[in-house]
Amino acid sequence: MNENLFLSSSCLIERTLKSVGDQWSILILRDAHSGIRRFDELRKSLGIAPSMLTKRLAMLTEAGLLEKKRYSERPPRDEYVLTEAGCDFLPVLFMIGAWGRKHRGGGQIVRFFDAQTGTEINAVAIDETTGCPIGSREIRVVLPE
Amino acid sequence: MNENLFLSSSCLIERTLKSVGDQWSILILRDAHSGIRRFDELRKSLGIAPSMLTKRLAMLTEAGLLEKKRYSERPPRDEYVLTEAGCDFLPVLFMIGAWGRKHRGGGQIVRFFDAQTGTEINAVAIDETTGCPIGSREIRVVLPE
Repeated sequence: MNENLFLSSSCLIERTLKSVGDQWSILILRDAHSGIRRFDELRKSLGIAPSMLTKRLAMLTEAGLLEKKRYSERPPRDEYVLTEAGCDFLPVLFMIGAWGRKHRGGGQIVRFFDAQTGTEINAVAIDETTGCPIGSREIRVVLPE
Repeated sequence: MNENLFLSSSCLIERTLKSVGDQWSILILRDAHSGIRRFDELRKSLGIAPSMLTKRLAMLTEAGLLEKKRYSERPPRDEYVLTEAGCDFLPVLFMIGAWGRKHRGGGQIVRFFDAQTGTEINAVAIDETTGCPIGSREIRVVLPE
């Protein structure tokens, strides 16, 4: 991983986007979270050109969100497993989905439930310290010195 | 807004990404949230080619996240103001930043504080119903029938 590339900006949003910068990468992570981890399955699920998929899998692996694991020796075949950093992307995916639920809702949609309580998941981002939803209070920005 | 385009997928993540699909669009929304709303300011802040910026501002306006408002008649000049849908993107931005903080931290970074308490904001996505962090419990996926 080229650390300089990721750390050159002082904006954490920009640093993240350098690893997971486009629609395809985000959808690959979504699929990996749903258990779709093999090249052909990803290609089919996403309807993506093989060369585009190869490039993005290499990028996500290089960025440390996916890890290549061989599941067959003959023929040689790999699958792409989420790393801890990849797993940590789930809250981002849920918040992207929460925006869609509010502003692009309606019609047939995939829904997510808490397996234990059976209630539908309603993802909200809060500030852990105050407990208040992000955007509900005034924010002070401090630039690096 | 072409509703069919946005609603054709049953995945809310995909629907969102069709509106805010690339790195530039997300960074434009970040800047709009910081009060950077004029073409030349955005161009300077992002270091983006004018034609690319024009295209993305049109896309975000069409998707209903930004609204064009004239601030000068002579010469004619517009600024791009966040709509309610654009404001609602802030939690997504914070969660993208939270991932960066954990996995791309270090060095000089822009930091965000609660203006009232003075404490640094630590964004966490929770399920509002259970109160538990997203990813800490088993999830059941229900596909549309």
